[in-house]
Amino acid sequence: MEKLVECVPNFSEGRRVEIVDEIVNAMLLPGVQLLDREMDADHNRAVITLAGDPDAIEQAAFAGIATAARLINLDQHRGQHPRIGATDVVPFIPMRGVTMADCIALARRVGERVGRELEIPVYLYERAATRPERQNLADIRKGEYEVLKNEIARDPARAPDFGPARVGTAGATVIGARPFLIAFNVNLATSDVQIAKEIARVIREKNGGLKSVKANGFLLKEKNVAQVSMNLTDFTITSPLVAFNAVQAEATKRGVQILASELVGLMPIDALTQIAAQALRLPALRADQIVEMKI
Amino acid sequence: MEKLVECVPNFSEGRRVEIVDEIVNAMLLPGVQLLDREMDADHNRAVITLAGDPDAIEQAAFAGIATAARLINLDQHRGQHPRIGATDVVPFIPMRGVTMADCIALARRVGERVGRELEIPVYLYERAATRPERQNLADIRKGEYEVLKNEIARDPARAPDFGPARVGTAGATVIGARPFLIAFNVNLATSDVQIAKEIARVIREKNGGLKSVKANGFLLKEKNVAQVSMNLTDFTITSPLVAFNAVQAEATKRGVQILASELVGLMPIDALTQIAAQALRLPALRADQIVEMKI
Repeated sequence: MEKLVECVPNFSEGRRVEIVDEIVNAMLLPGVQLLDREMDADHNRAVITLAGDPDAIEQAAFAGIATAARLINLDQHRGQHPRIGATDVVPFIPMRGVTMADCIALARRVGERVGRELEIPVYLYERAATRPERQNLADIRKGEYEVLKNEIARDPARAPDFGPARVGTAGATVIGARPFLIAFNVNLATSDVQIAKEIARVIREKNGGLKSVKANGFLLKEKNVAQVSMNLTDFTITSPLVAFNAVQAEATKRGVQILASELVGLMPIDALTQIAAQALRLPALRADQIVEMKI
Repeated sequence: MEKLVECVPNFSEGRRVEIVDEIVNAMLLPGVQLLDREMDADHNRAVITLAGDPDAIEQAAFAGIATAARLINLDQHRGQHPRIGATDVVPFIPMRGVTMADCIALARRVGERVGRELEIPVYLYERAATRPERQNLADIRKGEYEVLKNEIARDPARAPDFGPARVGTAGATVIGARPFLIAFNVNLATSDVQIAKEIARVIREKNGGLKSVKANGFLLKEKNVAQVSMNLTDFTITSPLVAFNAVQAEATKRGVQILASELVGLMPIDALTQIAAQALRLPALRADQIVEMKI
């Protein structure tokens, strides 16, 4: 069984297709497969999902960061989504025959090379973090590019793990290793965003809710619908079904119905199996009971 | 893309591993892959799941039936599950690059050969049936081996499609073609088999319940647990989650809790996706959003 690492680089370009094309093309080296590619104009951000051999993925990540640094100028970038760099964040995820330790080592090698060759400051995050206060991406990204630009040279707490303590037009990049993240949103039958924000506060880990759940409430302006937007950072701890049921219970308490859910990007077969196992009271269900996984 | 047929022969032996080993070994011809193998001592039945090239699967099915006829004596067989033969039923299921018509033709060729070479009466069922009253397996199997043995020569309605109108110790075999079948059981927190039988009657299509659901109530003697045992003959019509919820609702009405469910054999990725889509109110979920399906 060949080794497989997933890599989900986020680039600060969600409007100009030709720029994202060029970055993606630079990453499609032999042994690298493009699994998904999403652009969001409001966020002005592209999320690219790659999988492949660890060595090929290592080269691809570097090539993507180098290309984005050449093509994206953070001084001219505006978007809804917080960001500090042209390549904003690059997580490596163990998928098959690869450990979390392997992915941490991979993140460090890429980070060192980006700092040295591209002179971009690099912060290591999540499982690859070198200090506890850098585990959380939101903490590293505080104030975004504009604030980091002024603070990086003065504030020792913002000293990068690799690269210079100064920021060019490519900004800084956050690189790390983490378990598979499921981005899962639940849309409520209300336009009252306060209800979504309240539910998010109740269910998220930060406020004593479900472990490994990050959540926020948003208003989807086009649909005029309030959304509980979640990142499930370890589905083996809290699955999409447990998170959905918690949102539904809180919505019901507030007299609000669920419209529908949405999955952003992909989900591993083990997460899908876990959902069915919980929904059907079928704890023994395994991915190898799925026909297509056996052939 | 190579052609792929699935075949799920059911043999009347669920206790003696060495017998099932011999039957399985006879079927593992080149081009045939063993996907699953389950034995149930209470049912005294083995369910073997094979997939492969249509020609190889055709040879494998015949080899399995011939071996079971030699090793299993229905006069000495007792078990919970209804059966009429050493090889009780052999469905062929189109999986990839193969039509239902191809599988019907395959079923007829195997049936003809089993009748002629092994002198076992063969009934064609489901999509391969030659008369409407033989579409349903339960109707063909009525009274089981013991009744068929007496009636087959006298009753023209029981004349086989192939082979002699007499039954030896290998009984008769039902062969056919059908869509993917999900065998899904729900165990109740009671030993009262009448409750399981009642629930089965309420939920099954035959008595006006859920479409494409066959169901029966059994007592699992080893566990002293009543079980609602279901065959979902077309999961695109009634999914495992809808069936589970129906069983749970009926059990609750009778003051009985669910212990757990079990999947016998395999389930296609589309069924798993459908369960998650229903449980999470995520109608847009597709199998190609599963990481492993994209690699």
